[in-house]
Amino acid sequence: MDIVNFNAGPAGLPRAALERARDELLDIAGTGISIMEHSHRGKTYEAIHAEALGLVKDLLGVPDTHDVAFLQGGASHLFAILPMNYLAAGRSADYVLTGDWSKKAMAEAKIVGRARVAASGQVDGKFVRIPKEAELDRDPGAAYLHITSNNTIAGTQWSEFPARGAVPLVADMSSDLMWRPTDVAPFDLIYAGAQKNIGPSGIAVIIARKDFVAAGLETIPTYLRLKTHFDAGSLYNTPPTFAIYMIRNVLALVKESGGLAAMEEKNRAKGAIVYGAIDGSGGFYRCPVEVESRSLMNIVFRLPTEALEDAFVKQAEKDGLIGLKGHRSVGGCRASTYNAVSIDGARRLANFMGDFAKRNG
Amino acid sequence: MDIVNFNAGPAGLPRAALERARDELLDIAGTGISIMEHSHRGKTYEAIHAEALGLVKDLLGVPDTHDVAFLQGGASHLFAILPMNYLAAGRSADYVLTGDWSKKAMAEAKIVGRARVAASGQVDGKFVRIPKEAELDRDPGAAYLHITSNNTIAGTQWSEFPARGAVPLVADMSSDLMWRPTDVAPFDLIYAGAQKNIGPSGIAVIIARKDFVAAGLETIPTYLRLKTHFDAGSLYNTPPTFAIYMIRNVLALVKESGGLAAMEEKNRAKGAIVYGAIDGSGGFYRCPVEVESRSLMNIVFRLPTEALEDAFVKQAEKDGLIGLKGHRSVGGCRASTYNAVSIDGARRLANFMGDFAKRNG
Repeated sequence: MDIVNFNAGPAGLPRAALERARDELLDIAGTGISIMEHSHRGKTYEAIHAEALGLVKDLLGVPDTHDVAFLQGGASHLFAILPMNYLAAGRSADYVLTGDWSKKAMAEAKIVGRARVAASGQVDGKFVRIPKEAELDRDPGAAYLHITSNNTIAGTQWSEFPARGAVPLVADMSSDLMWRPTDVAPFDLIYAGAQKNIGPSGIAVIIARKDFVAAGLETIPTYLRLKTHFDAGSLYNTPPTFAIYMIRNVLALVKESGGLAAMEEKNRAKGAIVYGAIDGSGGFYRCPVEVESRSLMNIVFRLPTEALEDAFVKQAEKDGLIGLKGHRSVGGCRASTYNAVSIDGARRLANFMGDFAKRNG
Repeated sequence: MDIVNFNAGPAGLPRAALERARDELLDIAGTGISIMEHSHRGKTYEAIHAEALGLVKDLLGVPDTHDVAFLQGGASHLFAILPMNYLAAGRSADYVLTGDWSKKAMAEAKIVGRARVAASGQVDGKFVRIPKEAELDRDPGAAYLHITSNNTIAGTQWSEFPARGAVPLVADMSSDLMWRPTDVAPFDLIYAGAQKNIGPSGIAVIIARKDFVAAGLETIPTYLRLKTHFDAGSLYNTPPTFAIYMIRNVLALVKESGGLAAMEEKNRAKGAIVYGAIDGSGGFYRCPVEVESRSLMNIVFRLPTEALEDAFVKQAEKDGLIGLKGHRSVGGCRASTYNAVSIDGARRLANFMGDFAKRNG
């Protein structure tokens, strides 16, 4: 039985990217050894490293004003080092709170310096929407304005990003980058844990304005300065070579498959299918998110009772539809429909949802 | 032609660990998906995570006073966060300088607080020896004493570790951990980038006294506190799941092959073969390191001229002996003989060295 993997991350990876890894695992590029056994200063690895960085630039059309780096640690690491790099004594940063991850990001900024809520997506204590541009209460002196562009737990997503304004714009795009074409130019810094649409866990992709990177504080430890990694071409220290190799495999496939425009078309089709199943269920399935703020990456929904939700997740798993349990902090169900989920996979889920509702409605 | 991989790190991995990864790459434990596609909160991954941590404890006989954690970022990351965790205002740390990596570690401590040289392995400006216990000028009030137990560039290695004394003992064992049985009890903190004897790059293994971990400063960002990762069982955030899976594969093999005592026997045999080739060459090959301080992990040697060194590295590569170029900062040749290099591989190198000396001596 073919598995459809709706995990929120680490997420499914394109089959062909994994097959390539399997086929090359003991012998990369005719060298007789594994990519994991190559020196990060050798030609074989360096070519793959450059290709992976180049694919990020190419797919997103990263302009010359910006550069790309890879960094270990994931988004949680960036939560910490972002304010360390930019919150000089007395400075404050603005955060838009749209879910648990933005709260966590802001909490780290408060450890380092001052941070302020510029807007919130909470209604009655629940994160069910993305604030509109006009709702943003911006501090004109902020070191940066931080948003979380897709919220994996809440199931909300920014469809249009706020204008940059006078303050540097920073986005955690962990669950958002590479599912559609994105103009990175207005952003001073974008960071994304790879384990959703880009590659395996254990690495983050950072896209940043060169002058913003250069403006980072130089009084913090070397490894924690973003500048260190940009200046060294992501080779300041031994990088996670296999993770970067997998990013190469995944993004090379995205490019071959028509690039991000093709991904967007596919992802919108999947979203229409699954949200269609929710909205067409006569209330059996219910999405708690405001329609305009719905995420196309993480589709959250509730059933009439928790017992039915449990049964739904278990029976779906028997049908090969895995990873449908909602985040433990909010309960319910969640279908994460990242790039690697096929349109057919979304249809199988919608069909299962229809059948399950008929049997239990 | 079978390759013998003398890379300094990322280093060679046991063939069987890679074959297992290849065979399981598309379907781990009958789940129908790759280990990279599993949630880090799911049963399949959690079992592997626990097995990997358990193998570290088991192989090293880690006592109940200590615990083990995995952390992204490698040793360079630890250079930064070690002083952040332990250098409270006004505190100082002692560093024993035995090579470039200990210098880098100390430089990061100086960014955070105060650091002091407790001893140096330099003679005439070159790192050619490990200081004796009696040479250590210890600060009794130091927050910790830091050593680098094996020096990949200098080719030196501590054969006996300094006594703990009154000050917490911390060791960077990146290129040292898991090649022989090591009593971890006297150490308050051991850290090691995995990419030598333990697994692929992109992850560090940390072994620490529980009370030392608990004593870390809580005023620094959450992710950078060692306590965060120990308390969360190395699952505070999404871990590099594939890297940890590979650690499991590698250490399971070490255990099956007789554990660390068997590794030590093999590594000492390899060292005897390669150092034997150097010492028996009538001066054609010369090891710049004091005999008592010679490393069994990184065997550095010089030839009569740099031109001969270049020719040596190139011809060896044609014979399948790769990675023999010395570090770019010191030149010369280097054979890194980590666990995955076989005794036969060491013999092939020694034979090649003998032939090359005959042809060029």
